[in-house]
Amino acid sequence: MKSIFTRNWRRTVKATLTVIALSLFVPSLALASHGSGEEGGHGSHFALVLAFLGVIVVLAKVAGSIAERFKQVSVLGELLLGIALGIPVLFGWHFFDGFKENELVLFISELAVIVLLFQAGLESNLHEMKRVGMKAFIVAIVGVIVPFVLGTYVLAPWLFPEGTSNFALFLGATLTATSVGITARVFKDLKISQTKSAKIVLGAAVFDDIMGLIILAVVNGIVQSGHVGPGEIAWISFKAVAFLVVSIFVGRLLAPHIGRFLSRISSGVSMKMALALAFAFGYAYLGSQFGLAPIVGAFAAGLLLDSVYFSRFVHPKLTNEIEKIVEGCQDARVSSEVQETLKEHRHRHIEDLIEDFGHWFIPVFFVVTGMAVNLSVLADMKVLLAALALTVAAVLGKIVSGFFAGKGADWKVVGLGMVPRGEVGLIFAAIGRQSGVINDEAFAIIVVMIILTTFITPIVLPRVIKKSVEEKPVETPVV
Amino acid sequence: MKSIFTRNWRRTVKATLTVIALSLFVPSLALASHGSGEEGGHGSHFALVLAFLGVIVVLAKVAGSIAERFKQVSVLGELLLGIALGIPVLFGWHFFDGFKENELVLFISELAVIVLLFQAGLESNLHEMKRVGMKAFIVAIVGVIVPFVLGTYVLAPWLFPEGTSNFALFLGATLTATSVGITARVFKDLKISQTKSAKIVLGAAVFDDIMGLIILAVVNGIVQSGHVGPGEIAWISFKAVAFLVVSIFVGRLLAPHIGRFLSRISSGVSMKMALALAFAFGYAYLGSQFGLAPIVGAFAAGLLLDSVYFSRFVHPKLTNEIEKIVEGCQDARVSSEVQETLKEHRHRHIEDLIEDFGHWFIPVFFVVTGMAVNLSVLADMKVLLAALALTVAAVLGKIVSGFFAGKGADWKVVGLGMVPRGEVGLIFAAIGRQSGVINDEAFAIIVVMIILTTFITPIVLPRVIKKSVEEKPVETPVV
Repeated sequence: MKSIFTRNWRRTVKATLTVIALSLFVPSLALASHGSGEEGGHGSHFALVLAFLGVIVVLAKVAGSIAERFKQVSVLGELLLGIALGIPVLFGWHFFDGFKENELVLFISELAVIVLLFQAGLESNLHEMKRVGMKAFIVAIVGVIVPFVLGTYVLAPWLFPEGTSNFALFLGATLTATSVGITARVFKDLKISQTKSAKIVLGAAVFDDIMGLIILAVVNGIVQSGHVGPGEIAWISFKAVAFLVVSIFVGRLLAPHIGRFLSRISSGVSMKMALALAFAFGYAYLGSQFGLAPIVGAFAAGLLLDSVYFSRFVHPKLTNEIEKIVEGCQDARVSSEVQETLKEHRHRHIEDLIEDFGHWFIPVFFVVTGMAVNLSVLADMKVLLAALALTVAAVLGKIVSGFFAGKGADWKVVGLGMVPRGEVGLIFAAIGRQSGVINDEAFAIIVVMIILTTFITPIVLPRVIKKSVEEKPVETPVV
Repeated sequence: MKSIFTRNWRRTVKATLTVIALSLFVPSLALASHGSGEEGGHGSHFALVLAFLGVIVVLAKVAGSIAERFKQVSVLGELLLGIALGIPVLFGWHFFDGFKENELVLFISELAVIVLLFQAGLESNLHEMKRVGMKAFIVAIVGVIVPFVLGTYVLAPWLFPEGTSNFALFLGATLTATSVGITARVFKDLKISQTKSAKIVLGAAVFDDIMGLIILAVVNGIVQSGHVGPGEIAWISFKAVAFLVVSIFVGRLLAPHIGRFLSRISSGVSMKMALALAFAFGYAYLGSQFGLAPIVGAFAAGLLLDSVYFSRFVHPKLTNEIEKIVEGCQDARVSSEVQETLKEHRHRHIEDLIEDFGHWFIPVFFVVTGMAVNLSVLADMKVLLAALALTVAAVLGKIVSGFFAGKGADWKVVGLGMVPRGEVGLIFAAIGRQSGVINDEAFAIIVVMIILTTFITPIVLPRVIKKSVEEKPVETPVV
């Protein structure tokens, strides 16, 4: 193909000469031209932003992969990369400052958050949650209330006596989140995903997501409408819950019909992806019409969509190839498992499609959030101590929830498993910062807390689990 | 999984009650809160734009699929959808007007154009072109010069006597483009892709792309810098060609090393895609630094990248599945072709990855471009006649180039095959409109011309080919 250049240098020269030859006629055509120049800067600015995004995402993938080698989540690497990009600012070099406030970069970053919460919704396994339902629910409730109270009523007045009550609310809200991606990986690595402790943590995380979003809706509503009485808070909460319940209910009724109808027109996976994203974006808008953050809608869209609805869409290219494979294997003894894999392959799940779509966007959010950390505020010892205090509160608040895991589960494993704040906490902090409720100092402190809670878990949790297994070798597996 | 709702209605009620219960504690926590509201509109506006994009892309996929049923390219359907969205404006309903000027929508649209030209570069087959090299080159040159001269020096002064010379240049430039996607499909359908005529058309199209981009660079440079002498035109042309040659040369030297280095850090396909996009965006920026349109750089990036450079990246999920399949087939008699397919499958080609990435963006460009057509100007009979005249010139200009196809090729097939203007012409028109060189009237005329040339081809070309085959049954196949 294009190895014309690499294979044969003579051809390179030929091609070069060809292109040069091409150019000779252009001036002759354009000779007689005059005219008035207009905005040459736009294309260049646009291209600069794109180039920044292109390079940043590659660097983020590198940082994420390095983090994964250290058994950390890639998010942590991406976040630290963003923070590292803030180092030049300390030396008075403000090159990246323009980007982090750039509207297009922020747009991509916000789009990424929508996709992220949509993914979280898609991956939330309500069925799984049901099994350990009540226990997980109680753990989740405690794991939300305790950190919230600690943050809003203890830490906020103590660390930020001059802060507004809105600020206190946001601080509490960022402490409620749970991001169990890394915990789930630890459980998988140590092959204890099937134990009761693991099931409770994973179930509680889904409850946590939903509760966190409702809290966000309420806090957001309060921040937006200023002075708020109990009646209005009840009204905002009612709206949030009503939106989630009604929209998921209506969506589940409509989605299969829409999917069937559109698959008759075009059954390709590109339609499937467009449809899934339309749900995510449409729900984000609907949510915002109810005064909720767009991410609440996107999460609801993820919860309601089920791959079954869009099962008629297939990947035409893959389908062809797989049919060839099946033909080749036909007269052979091919296990039913393999045949199943092949059939699966034809349909690409919504989760996979959205994951592919998000691959490029999502790192932008984490890098931009990291860049928003003003490193100079961290030079203050007081700020660092505050970050530490917040981290301690964040850890304690979740460990307390472990006490409610009940018999058959290890409270230390459950409690520690809930500690990492990850994405959701970051999204809260980013929203608070954008709306001006959270200042530079508090934002930096929150990010440090999120980094520490996320960083600690894969280091401490495996030791606790191993100790727990040694003490009572067989933990009741839930079947 | 989430069939919890659909399978069992009682559980729905339970889940509903759960969520309602969740909400009851939030108000109690947030009771004491006060604060000042800030910018509630932002999230809502952002979500509205997203929802618009989400819905528009689904509609575009529908329109594209309908067009394909009529043997037309999907682009035509997307463009017509955009135009149809302008109909309400005729009745004084300006709902969509805000979107088509919205900065975020335009950003997505511009991003789409970059990806589109990157794809065009990736798919350009220099090797293929070489075979019919000189013939294709002459056909391409004639097919660029004749329409350009017709447009700039005949039609522009005749149809738009009050137009600037910049305008005349842009009009000529939009006539030079060739988009052979639809022609290639006709050739494939009629199984004549291997004939000399087909090879010449496909080869000439690549030359056309390169020449078109150089013309765009020159025209753009002229428009930007206003009054321009022959010296400056030569300088702009030189810059464009030097950029293409040097950047492709340097890129080909560096890309394999960068690919190898990064694949050691992360060998996933998400890194591969990020890397490819970084090249596209980085080159778009480099191009703009040379005073070229960003798409020129993106095209160059596509030309230089070869899947071989990034062959170390594999799709981890697919790889696992495929290894399972290979295991299952192992002791069976599996043809080598099938085994080849399986191996291929592990690597996803850059083309495929970028195609997946572009699926969602690219329709936005065509819909937005269609929306930019001011339908009310088309109510003028004079404008419609002008559009017709432009179309005739566009067709004639390319058919003339067929005369130079030489022996063994059918001049009618070659000439008609070059007629559709498609994407590239649209991109030129969009750039001209954005920079203010092309007014509403001329833009509408150009879009009508592009639609007509694209629409005619799959209707007329098959008849001409069938007639040509009847006259001389065996056209020399090129092997």
